[in-house]
Amino acid sequence: MLGVLGGMGPMATVDFMAKVIKSTPASCDQDHIEMVVCSATGVPDRTAAILAHGRDPLPAMLDGLRRLESSGARCIAIPCNTAHCWHGALQAKTSVPILHIVDAVADTLARRGMTGTTIGVLATDGTVHAEVYQTQLAARGHTCLVPDAKAQVSIMQAIRLVKAGRVSEAGAILRREAEALVDRGCALVAMACTEIPLALADVDAELRTRLLDPTEALARACVEACLAASKMPTTEAA
Amino acid sequence: MLGVLGGMGPMATVDFMAKVIKSTPASCDQDHIEMVVCSATGVPDRTAAILAHGRDPLPAMLDGLRRLESSGARCIAIPCNTAHCWHGALQAKTSVPILHIVDAVADTLARRGMTGTTIGVLATDGTVHAEVYQTQLAARGHTCLVPDAKAQVSIMQAIRLVKAGRVSEAGAILRREAEALVDRGCALVAMACTEIPLALADVDAELRTRLLDPTEALARACVEACLAASKMPTTEAA
Repeated sequence: MLGVLGGMGPMATVDFMAKVIKSTPASCDQDHIEMVVCSATGVPDRTAAILAHGRDPLPAMLDGLRRLESSGARCIAIPCNTAHCWHGALQAKTSVPILHIVDAVADTLARRGMTGTTIGVLATDGTVHAEVYQTQLAARGHTCLVPDAKAQVSIMQAIRLVKAGRVSEAGAILRREAEALVDRGCALVAMACTEIPLALADVDAELRTRLLDPTEALARACVEACLAASKMPTTEAA
Repeated sequence: MLGVLGGMGPMATVDFMAKVIKSTPASCDQDHIEMVVCSATGVPDRTAAILAHGRDPLPAMLDGLRRLESSGARCIAIPCNTAHCWHGALQAKTSVPILHIVDAVADTLARRGMTGTTIGVLATDGTVHAEVYQTQLAARGHTCLVPDAKAQVSIMQAIRLVKAGRVSEAGAILRREAEALVDRGCALVAMACTEIPLALADVDAELRTRLLDPTEALARACVEACLAASKMPTTEAA
């Protein structure tokens, strides 16, 4: 059973679930992976906590984690990039493996045979500031480029527009900023906030080839982990 | 907290969650309704249980219900029409209210000022045979028309295509069968299997006005119930 610590934001969780379902080889309901999803929309804003001493989101995330554990989750995903700042703190509190979204991205790059790639990072202020992508992708041999300060203000505004349901307005801003990162020399641009793929779902084919979707990478990693676990002999019910 | 007993099918649950989110007045994550979702894809086939003495789905649904209760759900929805055959049996086992999808449909018709309406029912063999819609809509003054036997075979085939991810093939069949019900005199056609709105998402504007979406009706009923509960003084945490 896959546990999803979601609601950050809620529509990004729906997008993640859809990507898990689409990545699963299935011809009927019973072929699909069982999931328990906690859409914990009340978790305090992650970027505010990182940058402006806002309320600590960890207690609310731990509460969601407990619900997932007690529901029988054997593998957990968090479809929010900024929340990965607390990945270590959360993993320290549970023996259930929590897949890391940036590991899933690095594995996707490796599978495509890409080494030493320059990756643009479209993300929240919190994710950029905490260097969630920069540190972990550097360890796997890649280089990250982040938007300049003015562009970052626009990106943060676009992410808030998605959370308020104003997806097409957000899309126009994010398309421009993704193209700017490509112009600066990025081979790929990571849509490193789970709201961003919602707004860039309909971009033209040319830009599409330059976008990397960490939500989809995490969904595929979850499907692989769950299908592998279901094939392993276990001493307890999975 | 809204509990969702889902996974029947999994993409229908995702569609229901998206409709809850879109029906919620919100400008940031924290404005959205907290949900706990059990995507219980392992629940045995409901139509097979109704028609062909297939495995009883009730124990697996009760297991999901227990998980939702222990996670703190204060109101529960089941985004599967056929599963509503067991609505009474499930409600008998919990004090948490389980909203009924056909009540939500009847309330939608009442809100539109529609009385004595002829409603076509596009649904699984199980839902049609168990008269989930016919009985409850008759009690509210409406009349149901169901497809003939040959059409019902096509509809069931289309529902299985959606569950296997073959949505556009399913859409062509369902569009034809919805139009046939309109031609037979139905003022509205209820997409009374939660897979059907996925396949008819892109129909032309004319047919669109004749389709009634029970998934959306249930989502709106949930949002109203959760927002009303959040405004009521309570003695326990909601």
